[in-house]
Amino acid sequence: MKKLKRSARLVEMTQYLLFRPHSLIPLTVFAERYASAKSSISEDLAIIKEVFEEEGLGELHTLAGAAGGVKFTPRISKSASLGILEDIRKQLEQPDRVLPGGYLYMSDMLGQPNLVNEVGRMFATAFANKPLDVVMTVETKGIPIAYATASFLNLPVVIVRRDNRVTEGSAVSINYVSGSTKRISTMSLGRRALREQSNVLIIDDFMRAGGTIQGMIDLLREFHATVQGVGVFVESAEVDEHLIEDYVSIAKLTSVDPKTKQISVLPGTYFA
Amino acid sequence: MKKLKRSARLVEMTQYLLFRPHSLIPLTVFAERYASAKSSISEDLAIIKEVFEEEGLGELHTLAGAAGGVKFTPRISKSASLGILEDIRKQLEQPDRVLPGGYLYMSDMLGQPNLVNEVGRMFATAFANKPLDVVMTVETKGIPIAYATASFLNLPVVIVRRDNRVTEGSAVSINYVSGSTKRISTMSLGRRALREQSNVLIIDDFMRAGGTIQGMIDLLREFHATVQGVGVFVESAEVDEHLIEDYVSIAKLTSVDPKTKQISVLPGTYFA
Repeated sequence: MKKLKRSARLVEMTQYLLFRPHSLIPLTVFAERYASAKSSISEDLAIIKEVFEEEGLGELHTLAGAAGGVKFTPRISKSASLGILEDIRKQLEQPDRVLPGGYLYMSDMLGQPNLVNEVGRMFATAFANKPLDVVMTVETKGIPIAYATASFLNLPVVIVRRDNRVTEGSAVSINYVSGSTKRISTMSLGRRALREQSNVLIIDDFMRAGGTIQGMIDLLREFHATVQGVGVFVESAEVDEHLIEDYVSIAKLTSVDPKTKQISVLPGTYFA
Repeated sequence: MKKLKRSARLVEMTQYLLFRPHSLIPLTVFAERYASAKSSISEDLAIIKEVFEEEGLGELHTLAGAAGGVKFTPRISKSASLGILEDIRKQLEQPDRVLPGGYLYMSDMLGQPNLVNEVGRMFATAFANKPLDVVMTVETKGIPIAYATASFLNLPVVIVRRDNRVTEGSAVSINYVSGSTKRISTMSLGRRALREQSNVLIIDDFMRAGGTIQGMIDLLREFHATVQGVGVFVESAEVDEHLIEDYVSIAKLTSVDPKTKQISVLPGTYFA
C-alpha cells in the first residue's frame, strides 16, 4: 500500500479496527499496510483510543512485546444503553402489541437491524470478559440478536433447530417443556455444529419461565459444553419462578393486560 | 460536545458514517457535534471519501443545499468480492460437506458472522440503487444473510414463517411446492409484518429449483408488494430449469456427487 498521511491513516485504521473486534492485530500489520514507522502507528492508536473511549465505543488494548499488538473490545456506554432501553420501552408499551392470550407482538422490533445491533453490543459488553467459543440460540426470533452479539465478540453462531433437518446431518435431540404452554417440544443440534467441551453463550429474544433456555442447557450437556452466560432481550416477570437464575436481560415486562392492553416495562438485569 | 482536533474528528466521523449507511446526514449535525465550521467538516469528508473509495468500502455522496448533507453507501470492491468467493469455494468444496441424499452441509459457514457480513455487503452493493422498503427472507438459514444485507442497506427485515405462530397475530398463509422434495409446504407472514405495496428485496441462503422463492413471491402478491430483487447465497445448477429467472447469486454449485463426495463451485451471477 502507498504511504498514507496521518489523516488518511486514521480513517483507515478506524474502519479496520471496527470491523475486527476481539482480534489481536500486530502493529507490524499497520506499519506494513501504511509504510509507516511503528512509532507513528502508536501515536495514531493513541488518538483512536481516546476517541473510542470518550464516545463509549469500546477499548483499545495495546499489548507490548513480540507477540503483542492492539485489540479492540467493543462496548456501549451506560448512557447510550439507557437511551436504547428508553426506545425499547416506548416501543414495547404501544398498546396494539398485545395479542390474544396476552402474547406480545415483537417481530417488528426484532426486524430493526439498528436496534438488534445495539442490543448485540450490550450483550457483547456484558460478556466481554468471559472465555467464549461460540454463541448459541434456538430458531427463530433469537437469531438476529445472537448474530449481532457474535459479530461484536468475533465468535461463530450455532442455531438449535425445532425440527430435525436432513441438511444438518446426524443430530442430538432432546425434549423439553416450554414453560408458557406446558407443552412438550423437541429441539435438536447437529453433531458437527458444536465441538465437545465448548464454552457457550446462550442468547434468546424472550424468556418467560425459562423452559426453552433450560432445554438448551440440557442439550449442551450432551456436548459436554460449559454455559458461560445467558442473555435474553426481554424477560417476563409474570411467572412465579424462573427456571434459570443467572442471566442478563435488557428489559423486563412486569405486566401485560389483555383487557386494558396496558404493558409495563422495567430495566432488565443488565442495568442492575 | 467539546471542540475536537481534526485527527479526533476524522476518527469520530468515520465510525459515525460506518454505523449509519444509506442515511442522509446534514453537515450541521457534524458542525454542531464537533463545534467546527462547515468548511472544516467538508475538508474532513473529502479525506474520508478518498480513503473509503480507495479501500472499496463505499461511496460518500455530498448533496448541496438546505436539504443537503452526506450519505454513505457501503460497497465492496470487485477484488475483495473475489477474495470472499475464493474463501467460499474452498469451504464449499470440502468433501465432508456432502450429506446422504446429496444435500450439502452449510450451517457452519452460515454461522460465521464475518463471512455472513461480507455476503451481506455484496448484496447491498448489488441492490444499492433499487428503491427498497424492506428485506424479506424465510426461516431459518437465510435469516443471518438477510440481516447483514439489511444492516448495510439501512432497511428493516421481515421473516416469513414455516408455521403460524400465535405471536405473529393474524397472518396470510400460502402453500408452495418445494422444488427439491416436491412436497407441499406452508409459509405464512403476519398481516402487520409488511405494509401493503412495499418494495421488497428477497434474500435466501440456497436455491435449487426456486420453489421456496416462488412461494415468497406468491405470498408478496397477497400484500400487493413489488419484488425489486432476489439474492441467494448459493444456487444449485443441478436442476433443468429454475422457476426464477432474475436473481443474484454469489456461488453456484455445479455438481455434488454423493459417491465421490466431489463438489464443484463456480462464481454466481453476481460476478457476471
